[in-house]
Amino acid sequence: MTRSDGRKKDEMRTVRVERDYIPHAEGSVLFEMGNTKVICTASFEQKVPTWRRGSGKGWLTAEYSMLPRSTEIRTNREVSKGKVYGRTSEIQRLIGRSLRSVTDLSKLGGENTIWIDCDVICADGGTRTAAITGSFIALYDCCSKLLADGVIKEMPLNEFVAAISVGIYKEELLLDLCFSEDCEAEVDMNIVMESSGKIIEIQGTAERGSFTRGELDGLTDLAENGINKLIKMQKSKLVDT
Amino acid sequence: MTRSDGRKKDEMRTVRVERDYIPHAEGSVLFEMGNTKVICTASFEQKVPTWRRGSGKGWLTAEYSMLPRSTEIRTNREVSKGKVYGRTSEIQRLIGRSLRSVTDLSKLGGENTIWIDCDVICADGGTRTAAITGSFIALYDCCSKLLADGVIKEMPLNEFVAAISVGIYKEELLLDLCFSEDCEAEVDMNIVMESSGKIIEIQGTAERGSFTRGELDGLTDLAENGINKLIKMQKSKLVDT
Amino acid sequence: MTRSDGRKKDEMRTVRVERDYIPHAEGSVLFEMGNTKVICTASFEQKVPTWRRGSGKGWLTAEYSMLPRSTEIRTNREVSKGKVYGRTSEIQRLIGRSLRSVTDLSKLGGENTIWIDCDVICADGGTRTAAITGSFIALYDCCSKLLADGVIKEMPLNEFVAAISVGIYKEELLLDLCFSEDCEAEVDMNIVMESSGKIIEIQGTAERGSFTRGELDGLTDLAENGINKLIKMQKSKLVDT
Amino acid sequence: MTRSDGRKKDEMRTVRVERDYIPHAEGSVLFEMGNTKVICTASFEQKVPTWRRGSGKGWLTAEYSMLPRSTEIRTNREVSKGKVYGRTSEIQRLIGRSLRSVTDLSKLGGENTIWIDCDVICADGGTRTAAITGSFIALYDCCSKLLADGVIKEMPLNEFVAAISVGIYKEELLLDLCFSEDCEAEVDMNIVMESSGKIIEIQGTAERGSFTRGELDGLTDLAENGINKLIKMQKSKLVDT
Amino acid sequence: MTRSDGRKKDEMRTVRVERDYIPHAEGSVLFEMGNTKVICTASFEQKVPTWRRGSGKGWLTAEYSMLPRSTEIRTNREVSKGKVYGRTSEIQRLIGRSLRSVTDLSKLGGENTIWIDCDVICADGGTRTAAITGSFIALYDCCSKLLADGVIKEMPLNEFVAAISVGIYKEELLLDLCFSEDCEAEVDMNIVMESSGKIIEIQGTAERGSFTRGELDGLTDLAENGINKLIKMQKSKLVDT
Amino acid sequence: MTRSDGRKKDEMRTVRVERDYIPHAEGSVLFEMGNTKVICTASFEQKVPTWRRGSGKGWLTAEYSMLPRSTEIRTNREVSKGKVYGRTSEIQRLIGRSLRSVTDLSKLGGENTIWIDCDVICADGGTRTAAITGSFIALYDCCSKLLADGVIKEMPLNEFVAAISVGIYKEELLLDLCFSEDCEAEVDMNIVMESSGKIIEIQGTAERGSFTRGELDGLTDLAENGINKLIKMQKSKLVDT
Repeated sequence: MTRSDGRKKDEMRTVRVERDYIPHAEGSVLFEMGNTKVICTASFEQKVPTWRRGSGKGWLTAEYSMLPRSTEIRTNREVSKGKVYGRTSEIQRLIGRSLRSVTDLSKLGGENTIWIDCDVICADGGTRTAAITGSFIALYDCCSKLLADGVIKEMPLNEFVAAISVGIYKEELLLDLCFSEDCEAEVDMNIVMESSGKIIEIQGTAERGSFTRGELDGLTDLAENGINKLIKMQKSKLVDT
Repeated sequence: MTRSDGRKKDEMRTVRVERDYIPHAEGSVLFEMGNTKVICTASFEQKVPTWRRGSGKGWLTAEYSMLPRSTEIRTNREVSKGKVYGRTSEIQRLIGRSLRSVTDLSKLGGENTIWIDCDVICADGGTRTAAITGSFIALYDCCSKLLADGVIKEMPLNEFVAAISVGIYKEELLLDLCFSEDCEAEVDMNIVMESSGKIIEIQGTAERGSFTRGELDGLTDLAENGINKLIKMQKSKLVDT
Repeated sequence: MTRSDGRKKDEMRTVRVERDYIPHAEGSVLFEMGNTKVICTASFEQKVPTWRRGSGKGWLTAEYSMLPRSTEIRTNREVSKGKVYGRTSEIQRLIGRSLRSVTDLSKLGGENTIWIDCDVICADGGTRTAAITGSFIALYDCCSKLLADGVIKEMPLNEFVAAISVGIYKEELLLDLCFSEDCEAEVDMNIVMESSGKIIEIQGTAERGSFTRGELDGLTDLAENGINKLIKMQKSKLVDT
Repeated sequence: MTRSDGRKKDEMRTVRVERDYIPHAEGSVLFEMGNTKVICTASFEQKVPTWRRGSGKGWLTAEYSMLPRSTEIRTNREVSKGKVYGRTSEIQRLIGRSLRSVTDLSKLGGENTIWIDCDVICADGGTRTAAITGSFIALYDCCSKLLADGVIKEMPLNEFVAAISVGIYKEELLLDLCFSEDCEAEVDMNIVMESSGKIIEIQGTAERGSFTRGELDGLTDLAENGINKLIKMQKSKLVDT
Repeated sequence: MTRSDGRKKDEMRTVRVERDYIPHAEGSVLFEMGNTKVICTASFEQKVPTWRRGSGKGWLTAEYSMLPRSTEIRTNREVSKGKVYGRTSEIQRLIGRSLRSVTDLSKLGGENTIWIDCDVICADGGTRTAAITGSFIALYDCCSKLLADGVIKEMPLNEFVAAISVGIYKEELLLDLCFSEDCEAEVDMNIVMESSGKIIEIQGTAERGSFTRGELDGLTDLAENGINKLIKMQKSKLVDT
Repeated sequence: MTRSDGRKKDEMRTVRVERDYIPHAEGSVLFEMGNTKVICTASFEQKVPTWRRGSGKGWLTAEYSMLPRSTEIRTNREVSKGKVYGRTSEIQRLIGRSLRSVTDLSKLGGENTIWIDCDVICADGGTRTAAITGSFIALYDCCSKLLADGVIKEMPLNEFVAAISVGIYKEELLLDLCFSEDCEAEVDMNIVMESSGKIIEIQGTAERGSFTRGELDGLTDLAENGINKLIKMQKSKLVDT
């Protein structure tokens, strides 16, 4: 089987990382995975949401949006409708949970918040997983800066985190679906893992049809390989240098 | 290990089904799973959303809400904030996808919509999975009525569908978490399956910690057993009588 | 004249009361009047609205909503429009005023609020008056519980309260209109009275035509008889036992 | 008993009417009742709301608003909150119902709408009843103009309509409450009547206390007298000249 | 060239001023410029917006709205759409900036706000400039009253302010455009000046075509003459008497 | 006088243009002016707004937004407040008017719309003028593509358009203010001009103080020089190659 862009079934698209992309932000990255491009920033704010006050701990939350023309056909801005779409809300909750799962919120120097903003500049499938992988880099840079500035005392990140999509398309198990594959896939699955190899989040959906326990296994294998490569890349950028 | 309500680790709460609960609706049920109680209705409407017009096919969509005092502490109505919460939006998308995956939308007698409404009367964990299992019954009754009335020609449902939650709590794998377990669980997973044993949707989340491939397997086993019982119950109510 | 459901002109529909319907709530009832079914809960909260702070007194407020399929034709959820409809707002203001008129807000144990929630499960006319009669029961149970728990020192309720609809339909004065009568009535009137026989609220509307002073009198007589029976029923449930 | 402004118990405030106040409108009036001043306009539009299409009949609807500084203390604009307040919604529904009850909607020259706009310039109690009495004049002038222009064939108004407030204040029955009386009244009642002497709407509220059947009668008597004077005034302006 | 209403090119419409138009307000005026009529009020409030707290200084803000039938064709209320239109927002920002530029906010007696409300009763072009010229009068009267009452110690207004529109219509430079001229003008410009002859704001727009540096000069000359007359009128009303 | 970034008073910041930045869009550019960076896209849609239907002509409209961390301090997303801010609305109206003034809307191949989207990635003053200058390039590329594809028959653009800010800061007239200058400027002016040298829009504001006729002239001179350079740059990119 040949994929539309010539990749092999278990082949990921080319990853490109440009750190410190937005000068104002404590951490920021332009993260690209093939034609999918996301600007991720991590911003530090010296307060927490109302419900969190008095806890002595920090918080981390994420927002996600797409530029109107990041998509093939222009998408209306959510503010024109006056509300966040269900899909957006799902994605930003997923990004927030994934990053919080490796962040020790008691090490954010008190009641402080890290805001993660993921803005998709160009969309070609896998935007939510690219947003997670990219924003981990922004988060890491932000924490390093806070540590260097003495705002926090210890690195609050316990593990590296990356995410990727897998799916079943024409009965084949594929890694890292692009938009045209994603639209027609029978099964679409997003997996978030940490550097230890353990799973943080798994979301598998079969709007057309359904999948067996064996396929669940196969998809998880594929994703695990992809995520290992992404985490290796993250480490080479953030730690080894 | 003894669970707070005395159940075994792989034991489901008592299920209670009261069909035709709302006289106006084509299909309706009061579905209870322990103290979790949901009213599910299926309503037939002779039109489809704008984007669906001209397709010749029908549509199925779901809405979910909780009464303010279905929860331990009163929750404000979403309309007071003027918007659907992210959690609600996630759940109603999940219910819609799950039921659409077994419904042949070309057999709804043309461009007609089935609205599924799930209103939680009392919440004690597992409301989204109870909503799926219960609303399948309302949907089945609705389709039977439409068939009897000659509105549709064939039964549009290909499979039975049920759902259940599983999780890891104090390192134990548990079936059908109640609210107090759900709040403190390390891992929370919702699984939707069809009568064939295949998976429609899997959503596993680890906000505290993470889980291994082996645990993913164990949780899926537990869920499969539970769902088989639920589907057997559905069949005994809907078909055998 | 025979009414569509065989009742006499001055005959009320059958009343059914199921107390403690929602285990979480301080007071709750499933209140039925013929096919009209409303879940009413009374919830206690240890704070008051901003404008009330510093008064030393409590507050009581009410919210009302209908499940989408409580009606013959499915009604869209208000949250989908992002706002409370005018009719809903009118009804919840009426319920709140009616219950506050018999509640001594200085006896709520300080700056505490009682929230009344009325959710219509099935609608067949008279939902606002059923909501008042039913929520008085929930309120009474809530206050009894607060008294037993020592949260409040004295019973804050001065009188019993009940409400009923009356109307003119085909020139006949009728008690307790069902939906089909209500739709075609020339005059529609809702009356709220207390156990002393005095009026708390009267709202009479004639969108088709108008009514004489004599008809106003006759309708008030009819309502007074109905309300006396409802209050007798409330007392038999709440006090005599 | 002397009222704060020296009036007798059954004495109405001075009424002032300035017709054709807004040159653009088909009918318009600046209506004053003491210090309460309302601009009422009637606007003709050649379409009806969606739900009314195909009926062959017209529609009449009303909107009500207060200028921010019409009140003693400045009130925020509703648009700043993004929604119509419950009180406003109640009032505009009341105005619309009252005027529709005397308008033959089949005589509006087809599927056309009359919009009534009531904007309170200065508020000193009784704004909703002043809005009804004033906007009837604007409506009458609008219909006369449409008739003169040949847009409609017959006068669609069957009766004259006026409204007034009455109340119980310090145990006295009073006509036409000003704001300071209204704030402290035990009972507040608004009555809308037509020229035939029949009642179109009665709304009596007792948030503090309650009222007897005898008091209901006395208040209705008071209102009837006041309304007769208002209708006489309307006729002298609109017909006799 | 003869203008539609017979004016000369550099001739302003008749100005009419009625002070103390709304009895509740600290300052208020009914300001008319030909058929354009605006009610302007200035209201004093003893607090400032959140972001201004702790500054020790006051604030001044403006709101602008049009009655639905102030326009030739009825305009829907903004609250029906649930939001302020872009045009309204632009205008109220302009009014606020213009008045703040001559107000010493440190002389408002501490952290107090002056609210300017401009409600257009009848619109015939130039409503935003009429709102500025008129609300300066309301502001002046408000400040005089606060000074007389001892709430403030010194007059906080440094200069008089007035505004007018100019434009190019059929290649002619015109002063004070009425609505029919404004609709078809090639260039539309609003200028706000203070009594010293200096410019506070200039906004020139050419949606059809563009304009030369020479035309910019000519328009500014025209406006300067008009504004001088308006300020002279303001002074004759406010100071000389 | 030395400016904070070492520029001379009449010196513009470095301009950088990256065309075809977003592959999906008909025209797109990453436009940078010093640290101010804006992504501008032009999208073609085969319909017009409702009010424009039946005109036979096209339409052009613009939207503007800032990424949350484009600013020094993170700004909340407008969608979180559920509405477009007044400032945003002003800016997108300005961009739309400016581009429409040079576009012959009867040459867009019928009732088609061009959507201009300006998303600020990094903000350092002058974002609205950068958005205009940049989006003209995207618009030009979009039109060229439509012409090449035969969708339109003639180039609809009559002139080139660019914009720049000027201001008075510490009594000096400056070209192209950066953010720190803009914040403290006494006068802030944005000018939009076309290649002919004529003015399309001038907006000068003096929240602190005011400015003379002579200063108005000086600022316009400064802007004219800057805009000439920008238009020369646009031509070198778009035409000469």
